[in-house]
Amino acid sequence: MTEKSDCMQIPQMMDALGAAARTAAAQLALSSNAERNATLQSVAKLIRRRSEHIQAANQDDMRSATQKGLGAAMLDRLALDDARIEAMATGLEAIARLPDPVGRILAAWERPNGLQIQRVAVPLGVIGIIYESRPNVTADAAGLCLKSGNAVILRGGSESLRSNQVIYQCLHDGLSQAGIDPAAVQLVQTSDRDAVGYMLASMAGSIDVLIPRGGKGLVKRVQEEARIPVIGHLDGICHVYVHASADAAMAADIVVNAKMRRTGICGAAETLLVDRAAATGILPKILAALTDAGCTIKGDEDVQALFSPVEPASEEDWSTEYLDAVISCRIVDDIDQAIWHIGHYGSGHTESIVAGDAEAAAKFLAEVDSAIVLHNASTQFADGGEFGMGAEIGIATGRIHARGPVGAEQLTIYKYVVRGSGQVRP
Amino acid sequence: MTEKSDCMQIPQMMDALGAAARTAAAQLALSSNAERNATLQSVAKLIRRRSEHIQAANQDDMRSATQKGLGAAMLDRLALDDARIEAMATGLEAIARLPDPVGRILAAWERPNGLQIQRVAVPLGVIGIIYESRPNVTADAAGLCLKSGNAVILRGGSESLRSNQVIYQCLHDGLSQAGIDPAAVQLVQTSDRDAVGYMLASMAGSIDVLIPRGGKGLVKRVQEEARIPVIGHLDGICHVYVHASADAAMAADIVVNAKMRRTGICGAAETLLVDRAAATGILPKILAALTDAGCTIKGDEDVQALFSPVEPASEEDWSTEYLDAVISCRIVDDIDQAIWHIGHYGSGHTESIVAGDAEAAAKFLAEVDSAIVLHNASTQFADGGEFGMGAEIGIATGRIHARGPVGAEQLTIYKYVVRGSGQVRP
Repeated sequence: MTEKSDCMQIPQMMDALGAAARTAAAQLALSSNAERNATLQSVAKLIRRRSEHIQAANQDDMRSATQKGLGAAMLDRLALDDARIEAMATGLEAIARLPDPVGRILAAWERPNGLQIQRVAVPLGVIGIIYESRPNVTADAAGLCLKSGNAVILRGGSESLRSNQVIYQCLHDGLSQAGIDPAAVQLVQTSDRDAVGYMLASMAGSIDVLIPRGGKGLVKRVQEEARIPVIGHLDGICHVYVHASADAAMAADIVVNAKMRRTGICGAAETLLVDRAAATGILPKILAALTDAGCTIKGDEDVQALFSPVEPASEEDWSTEYLDAVISCRIVDDIDQAIWHIGHYGSGHTESIVAGDAEAAAKFLAEVDSAIVLHNASTQFADGGEFGMGAEIGIATGRIHARGPVGAEQLTIYKYVVRGSGQVRP
Repeated sequence: MTEKSDCMQIPQMMDALGAAARTAAAQLALSSNAERNATLQSVAKLIRRRSEHIQAANQDDMRSATQKGLGAAMLDRLALDDARIEAMATGLEAIARLPDPVGRILAAWERPNGLQIQRVAVPLGVIGIIYESRPNVTADAAGLCLKSGNAVILRGGSESLRSNQVIYQCLHDGLSQAGIDPAAVQLVQTSDRDAVGYMLASMAGSIDVLIPRGGKGLVKRVQEEARIPVIGHLDGICHVYVHASADAAMAADIVVNAKMRRTGICGAAETLLVDRAAATGILPKILAALTDAGCTIKGDEDVQALFSPVEPASEEDWSTEYLDAVISCRIVDDIDQAIWHIGHYGSGHTESIVAGDAEAAAKFLAEVDSAIVLHNASTQFADGGEFGMGAEIGIATGRIHARGPVGAEQLTIYKYVVRGSGQVRP
């Protein structure tokens, strides 16, 4: 298959792959939940059975990546061990256990003329996933697409191509075993970056929606160049706002968890806003807890005056996604200033208010225009699994089709089914 | 205001307009249904009160258009008389009576850790509408956007600019009267086509979704050039498929209605498919009824052999949207060939099966992948009003966010509101 990509031109190769996916999508859309679940279970078994083969390919990828001088963080993302391979398999089995997102009757009503109208969930069609180094995305993303009846075109990072090829083969064979056209999953088996450009600009006929998964650079490129609808998220500049009415211990627990539980995920808090009225009473306790947990504090002058050590925060800090043990902290005059700050510097991802006052909480939840708004809970709950949606393919920060965690349901759209008895329109 | 567009550069003018709409959208999103309805009612009153003023501006538009040699159909679309102005006003009042699409709880559940999660409908934000000659779109589209809490940037056809300006002034003043920032409705007051290019390519920060309304050329340009999500539809190549089990009289009624009730709407049938088994029994009756109604028949050789007069249909006919009293007709071997034909030549808009056999109907409804599929009913029901959704801004044939009639509900998205009591993520 690699040879194919070497000797064919990108447009021909990609068009062939797109056409195959489109044809398979039509069949897959009509498959039963049982058939799709059987596929996922077969793929999980194959991934377990071929674990050594996957790890051998991954070792090749790791060697090349090391030679190319990839950093430790990138290498860690690329690496597959027994535990990560088992996690791929159990992830697919968990997706198989999710309720069927296809065929749900989203609404049903009858018209005065007797027409029976139903809005019924159907797959989106063909989903293009463009992702970076983590090879587990190959299984996770394909699994969610298949569960929701979508064909998928996968374009992983060039550094993980060999790992992806083996995992892709498991997907392919699992589809075959379940009697579904294996063309429903396609892997772009070339590291030529033109393939990505072609997906973005020239495959509107064969890809219905693009989902980028990866760093800011990738997502930005996809959102700027794509001529196909994109479900993606740029930044996760998440805020915790501590209202004057907050319980001090609860505020400290939530802030420390929101920032420090895992600093590298998009739902990690990056900025702490605290009411001036709570600044002397609550803020030092929160900052001490953060410091104890190993977090660096950057703050405005008011914060620097209240606690030490605090590094000065620059204007840029308010719109920085640290993804690290660093938090920016600002004292605000009131809830309106907090809401303004979030609207101005935030990325529309996830924000939390800690407050005892119900009115303040209601105002925050209504007026903050982010995909997820929380009251008295950590921003780290911004996760499809934590929402009870099973797996997720990412958190959408765009404003159409889906916002927040994108799970199997969000990979569907609907059609209208109308049943009559001879009605004509007057 | 026209002077402004003459002396300012397009980018500055459009950016100013986008920024104003974005600011107004934030306020509008928090307005009450009562405030938005009061706006719509005020605008309706102003449109009635300023009817003469609107008609005077429209006369100017008509004169320029006549001088430019616009065709009769275009002139008819452009013209506003008492009845059309009254229809705009009553249309806005009808939109005001629709249920509030904002704030609907789309789903709600509790997690084992006690988190209460709600998916709540919120406005999309700022909607860009690019449309052609009909000036009534100015009121209709803005009305739906306002009802659903969205700010709107309107870019109408240059030939209707003066009519649009007066209607826009009614929208502006109606918003002011209701205490809502009038910047929530913006009209691009220049006929410079670069303004459209700028909207498509450079306003991703201030427009959340684009809705083109107009001919194929416009919609195609928008879908090809836009760097902003588009909700639109290209063609309405709608099919009626008459199954062997169809009742002959019902089939003739539905086909004649689907084709001839109004030939110029996107839900009008363009192709008739008839089972070979029903060809001699039913088809001549249908074709006679169509001919009696003034319809020209284009058919394959089988059809030509069965009925006269039938013009030969070319390959191109199967993918032609006549929007006229012409129908293409093909005899198919069975339902599978019919479904294949619709998938191959159709545009994913609206298709109907006429059948007595429940199994055939179920198969058709499940397997035809169009926005609207009907059983024993006319394709001309493809309409938001006929679906009971009130007004519509168009019929979407894309696959993300919305399919089928786009009404006030479809102009919303959602956010997640999560209520806790101090939960942190383990």
